[in-house]
Amino acid sequence: MRNIIIGQSGGPTPVINATLAGAYQEAKKLGYDKVYGMINGIKGLLREDIIDLDDYLSTKENLELLKRTPSSFLQSCRYKLGSYLDNEEDYINIFKVLDKYSIDSFIYIGGNDSMDTVESLSDYAMLKHKKQNFIGIPKTIDNDLPIIDHCPGFGSTAKYIATTIREIIRDNTAYGVTNPTVAIVEIMGRHAGWLTAASALAKDDSCEGVDAIYLPEVPLDIDKFVEDVKRIVKEKAAVVIAVSEGIKTTTGQFVCELSRNNIKEDSFGHKELSGCAETLANIISEKTNYKVRPIALSTLQRSCSHIASLTDMKEAEKVGKKGAKLAYDNETGKMVIIKRISNNPYKVKYGYWDDIHQIANIEKKIPLEWIDTENNQVKQELIDYIRPLIQGEVKQIYKDGIPQHLIRK
Amino acid sequence: MRNIIIGQSGGPTPVINATLAGAYQEAKKLGYDKVYGMINGIKGLLREDIIDLDDYLSTKENLELLKRTPSSFLQSCRYKLGSYLDNEEDYINIFKVLDKYSIDSFIYIGGNDSMDTVESLSDYAMLKHKKQNFIGIPKTIDNDLPIIDHCPGFGSTAKYIATTIREIIRDNTAYGVTNPTVAIVEIMGRHAGWLTAASALAKDDSCEGVDAIYLPEVPLDIDKFVEDVKRIVKEKAAVVIAVSEGIKTTTGQFVCELSRNNIKEDSFGHKELSGCAETLANIISEKTNYKVRPIALSTLQRSCSHIASLTDMKEAEKVGKKGAKLAYDNETGKMVIIKRISNNPYKVKYGYWDDIHQIANIEKKIPLEWIDTENNQVKQELIDYIRPLIQGEVKQIYKDGIPQHLIRK
Repeated sequence: MRNIIIGQSGGPTPVINATLAGAYQEAKKLGYDKVYGMINGIKGLLREDIIDLDDYLSTKENLELLKRTPSSFLQSCRYKLGSYLDNEEDYINIFKVLDKYSIDSFIYIGGNDSMDTVESLSDYAMLKHKKQNFIGIPKTIDNDLPIIDHCPGFGSTAKYIATTIREIIRDNTAYGVTNPTVAIVEIMGRHAGWLTAASALAKDDSCEGVDAIYLPEVPLDIDKFVEDVKRIVKEKAAVVIAVSEGIKTTTGQFVCELSRNNIKEDSFGHKELSGCAETLANIISEKTNYKVRPIALSTLQRSCSHIASLTDMKEAEKVGKKGAKLAYDNETGKMVIIKRISNNPYKVKYGYWDDIHQIANIEKKIPLEWIDTENNQVKQELIDYIRPLIQGEVKQIYKDGIPQHLIRK
Repeated sequence: MRNIIIGQSGGPTPVINATLAGAYQEAKKLGYDKVYGMINGIKGLLREDIIDLDDYLSTKENLELLKRTPSSFLQSCRYKLGSYLDNEEDYINIFKVLDKYSIDSFIYIGGNDSMDTVESLSDYAMLKHKKQNFIGIPKTIDNDLPIIDHCPGFGSTAKYIATTIREIIRDNTAYGVTNPTVAIVEIMGRHAGWLTAASALAKDDSCEGVDAIYLPEVPLDIDKFVEDVKRIVKEKAAVVIAVSEGIKTTTGQFVCELSRNNIKEDSFGHKELSGCAETLANIISEKTNYKVRPIALSTLQRSCSHIASLTDMKEAEKVGKKGAKLAYDNETGKMVIIKRISNNPYKVKYGYWDDIHQIANIEKKIPLEWIDTENNQVKQELIDYIRPLIQGEVKQIYKDGIPQHLIRK
């Protein structure tokens, strides 16, 4: 008899629950007896808050709802497991709970910080000769994990951003040429601009596209920014600009810090960034008479399951299955990865990375050669990289006019 | 030979172009020779900026794209035509252009302020024995026009709000019970809370619903608001609150004015309201240690064609057709209306209102008996009123993963 437990950690994505669905289904298929879920990641595991996933996922209908449910069905946490040398108590308690429930496999669906947890637990288990094995499955809308070609969750949010930016561009044109109108759209991505770059996909025969894109990979010269906007306004009065929440000035300060004090940090030391678009809008307002509107896509962009990418959802489910298989094969300290075999036609294969140390806490940024810094745009290579990931639409399960979700009661 | 011209005015809606499509199709079918569009409403008409709609809409494919295109295809304006006694020049110039193009019918798709324009032009034409007739067709996401049962545009935005609120609620639960997290969602609606009330529709078996709804119909006691939030947080740590951009304090001040100075006004004297959620979030942040996140749905909520309501889109198209028919029948100074015949099954019929004076510049608010002020929720009657309007999904025309639009080039 073998039991497995699955957790979700870090920021949610529109398809993180498709990974949970895939991992659950595959674990059952492979013959795991109990498939547990930990509530609030390892934080819940520490307080023994675990559920039997059979209670929720044993019908096909619920599995289909789960795949379409945004946010983390099991709830999440941002809990930094320190080195066992500093705080072995957490480690001892975690293994106590795992032993109590006869759990021998542990799957964690998360981003950089969560891979840090998988790494720490796997290392500790090997060091202390514990029987449990630990597998990481990637998810992050930010697409900033190294080694993997792209992260599940990114494609759906990129599709949402391209769709929404296109709608914002249309809206912004409504008042025409007499009053310059500048919309500044703030998009998530702390140090990596992948999501902000996805705004470039809005451009085609049916849309003019964004007029400028500012990525965190390139320091922002505020004076040049103001000049850029003035120049664009001269050419066309309705202007839409995409900015990453994490852009920094040439002196290394977050743009949002120019107008906000006391920015809070989470337990991983990450500053809570928001207000970048508003800061830039205020700067433009002060220096011009344009109508300027900051728009923050906020948590809408990571919970946008109603417009999830079918490609992304299928991949999210498959990495879940792959993770369960790796767990079943007694692998440990490994993360599931996606390799792109070809772009046209788009083909991927699933594998794993042996050394999770090379993944945890490292952020993959956009290569500078994919950025057109002169025109504040991105190059075709970057568009070609993202395009396949937003293809296909997920058929939603509507009831009374609104997409349905699965929730724990 | 008869010619007709169509304009769009005021704020865009997700389906205002379905009305344009309906009006164009019906006008052609009835035998109008030229169907013109005025760019930027009467502002464009004054500068003779008009197009022949045949150049854009003569294919079925383009008409279908137009119906799915958010914002005003003809672009909009907020131009207040004063009394002819104060400024007859505008009137003289408008009729000069109409005569030049042999236009004898004028259709204006808009909200309260646009009906004011229709009224003024129709009155002037009668007074001066002009041949032209003027018809108003309603649109507004705000749903605040009197006499009509509901306004085209409202249903699609209500569907977007219910869908998005449900996603925000899921997202907000991700971090569980240890850190109270309060999301405050700001929704459009200057003096009428119809859209904010639509957030109540998120609640069903698959969603807990919003925890409190604050409407502009009810003055907000800031101290009570803080107490409300504290009480809710004691019961459940993940809290989502819907607030209208236009809520006022008990002393009659807009909430957003508590933290913003120099709020601009448009030509109709309406203040540009935004920042209400942020103001309230700051107040809660100062008085508690909760994590508080303001989320403004901004222009996303009026350009959300990708999740338009099929019921709303069909009605938007039908009021367009009805408007063209009224114009063809030489009616003037009238607005197309929708009457609800029954709610279950939902049935409407289309008519017109004789006296546009009773519509222009009057805002329909939510009846107070439909508001549960004690629990900061809305009553079942209000939910039953909105529910039919969000039913049905529009099949989008996707290309490369993104819904397509029709644009003027």
